[in-house]
Amino acid sequence: MSKLFTFEKPLGMRDTLPFLYKVKKRVRQAMTNEIEQWGYEFIETPTLEYYETVGSASAIADHQLFKLLDQQGHTLVLRPDMTAPIARLAASRLYQHGNPLRLAYHANVFRAQQREGGRPAEFEQIGVECIGDGTVTADAEVIRLMIAALEKTGLERFAVAVGHIGYVNALFVDILGNEERANVLRRFLYEKNYVGYRNHVKSLPLSSIDQQRLLKLLELRGDAKVLASARELVQTEAGIKAVEELAELWNALRLFGVADTVKMDMTLVSHMSYYTGILFEVYADGVGFPLGNGGRYDELLEKFSCKAPATGFGIRLDRLIEALPEAAVESEIECIVFSQERFAEAIELANEKRRDGKKVVLQHIAGIRDIDAYSKRYGAITYLLGRAGKEE
Amino acid sequence: MSKLFTFEKPLGMRDTLPFLYKVKKRVRQAMTNEIEQWGYEFIETPTLEYYETVGSASAIADHQLFKLLDQQGHTLVLRPDMTAPIARLAASRLYQHGNPLRLAYHANVFRAQQREGGRPAEFEQIGVECIGDGTVTADAEVIRLMIAALEKTGLERFAVAVGHIGYVNALFVDILGNEERANVLRRFLYEKNYVGYRNHVKSLPLSSIDQQRLLKLLELRGDAKVLASARELVQTEAGIKAVEELAELWNALRLFGVADTVKMDMTLVSHMSYYTGILFEVYADGVGFPLGNGGRYDELLEKFSCKAPATGFGIRLDRLIEALPEAAVESEIECIVFSQERFAEAIELANEKRRDGKKVVLQHIAGIRDIDAYSKRYGAITYLLGRAGKEE
Repeated sequence: MSKLFTFEKPLGMRDTLPFLYKVKKRVRQAMTNEIEQWGYEFIETPTLEYYETVGSASAIADHQLFKLLDQQGHTLVLRPDMTAPIARLAASRLYQHGNPLRLAYHANVFRAQQREGGRPAEFEQIGVECIGDGTVTADAEVIRLMIAALEKTGLERFAVAVGHIGYVNALFVDILGNEERANVLRRFLYEKNYVGYRNHVKSLPLSSIDQQRLLKLLELRGDAKVLASARELVQTEAGIKAVEELAELWNALRLFGVADTVKMDMTLVSHMSYYTGILFEVYADGVGFPLGNGGRYDELLEKFSCKAPATGFGIRLDRLIEALPEAAVESEIECIVFSQERFAEAIELANEKRRDGKKVVLQHIAGIRDIDAYSKRYGAITYLLGRAGKEE
Repeated sequence: MSKLFTFEKPLGMRDTLPFLYKVKKRVRQAMTNEIEQWGYEFIETPTLEYYETVGSASAIADHQLFKLLDQQGHTLVLRPDMTAPIARLAASRLYQHGNPLRLAYHANVFRAQQREGGRPAEFEQIGVECIGDGTVTADAEVIRLMIAALEKTGLERFAVAVGHIGYVNALFVDILGNEERANVLRRFLYEKNYVGYRNHVKSLPLSSIDQQRLLKLLELRGDAKVLASARELVQTEAGIKAVEELAELWNALRLFGVADTVKMDMTLVSHMSYYTGILFEVYADGVGFPLGNGGRYDELLEKFSCKAPATGFGIRLDRLIEALPEAAVESEIECIVFSQERFAEAIELANEKRRDGKKVVLQHIAGIRDIDAYSKRYGAITYLLGRAGKEE
């Protein structure tokens, strides 16, 4: 254990300075306003949860959890996502069976990092969960709302890739016969390592027809036309149902007016193990990682003794901000520098400007050492020094 | 270690349901808007900090810290307050020597609790730090701003008690001669156990004059007139300086127009060990605990290799909300329930209402089990069911 420097922060932990704070606030408000307009209600859950309940229900790998022991000997975790805590809360206090519940959040989540200079270990997510509605319409609404909320932030060129975990699973189980083999292929898809996928498929002891079916999967990306080809690859009930759900989803998204923003991607899988149906990711032009993702998780609430279908999305605020065009920087704060004699006058002037909605710093000259450096910090400076009534 | 129930949360951890979320949001916005108008800039710091740097600089007792080990073997803490993290940030990146810096925050802080049903282990604080300005005017500004921000939340009857840790220390060291004895008396004052204080003073081997001086301290609470009596009790330079600073503070608060809201309390001490000068607490009528507190801490930044005076306040949002008059509850969310045939029409209507700024849930009838129970959740419901053009 090396000696720490005075200023150091833990691995992956970051400060948010005033400029970034303002950007985050603006983007957060744009998204949360839109989400509220769709009738979703915001809630908060604790930063710490029991590992035994929420920690193990979340889909984040164990080595990415921040864990600690409480004084009673229970293991706690810093919440790694918000879906599991909201499932706990909905199951225990809010959800009435069969009556859809619309909840939303903006909250920091935590993922322990292994290396210096890597990903953030704490970041803000904004998202919604629609709980208790098993219809495809609910999936469509969640995707439509995600698009609307992103548009409100000023994000311009982005696309939503939509798939169905039931389709991939049906195809793999039908052809490969066991989960272990399916896992290997899902891993290639998750990593978007299509070369690896191809090579692995060719190495499998399968009929050439089955190999062709697995390779054909990689082509099933594009507009709604891919659904017809997707239908041809599967024979099982689960596979057919998945394609039908996607066709229904596409129709609903067309009615919502956002079909242009959506691409079908039958190869889509997720690291979130709780997804059970339709799932999606959103990408901005020129940004290599998804800004957010979502999907249907019809079995998660059962872990909290409550059987209910559910669907939702979560957007990473840090990645969204990276994808947004840079906003102009303006120092909108004015400053009044005064000496003791004109204190009352300075208060009066500050009050007046603040009543007009301006942001005004009131600064006694005796508190400043380097007035030249100080004055550069603010947009406009008024000096009220010495006897009043002359210069200003 | 007992088996946990599915729904349990760690000791002192709480969910925030939609109604309370809205109250918190309203109160937070009222305060942060006012704080921004005074030219303070908001920042965020990480939830986790190194124990060695920020954890040990904070004034919270060690057993109240949530600690964990990172993968490099360092001890981390969940931030127990925001003053120490802001001192770290200001010292390392923002503060230019001699040029006052005005920073603000709204953030959750963490204090481990020992018992069930007790205090919250995570709560939100809103506050400011004015760094680099050693003038009494800066102390006055911080108190004035705290009052203005509280007024904006709708809080009506409240008072700020102002004291000076330098005064208490000067008096105690002068009479008692050592820190150990001074600590015992400070502890009585901190607990506001004046009977205990009196009894302890009488048990001390002191001259009756010195005993009277220590007992007289308890009477030094009220308006600015107590400063004259306070001046009589001390002879040391530090004690005299403290009284002079308070007189100057009172004058500045009078100019700021808030002298009526402020009471002098020479017995005021704090559990925050980093205070070095003027300090204060704010109480609302009928609420037994302070809503917040603040004061001058001219030595904290030195722990981060940066010599700078500083002053600030922090308000606990949960306590402030308890002190506020209860707001009216209205369900402002409308709902449109539709069947498949009228999906497009329902989207159109929802878009229209949302353009008017309304909050609208769009709900497919197939997603509802108990329409009677469901309909009670929303303010107004529009049904778009079956063939269009007839009833509505």
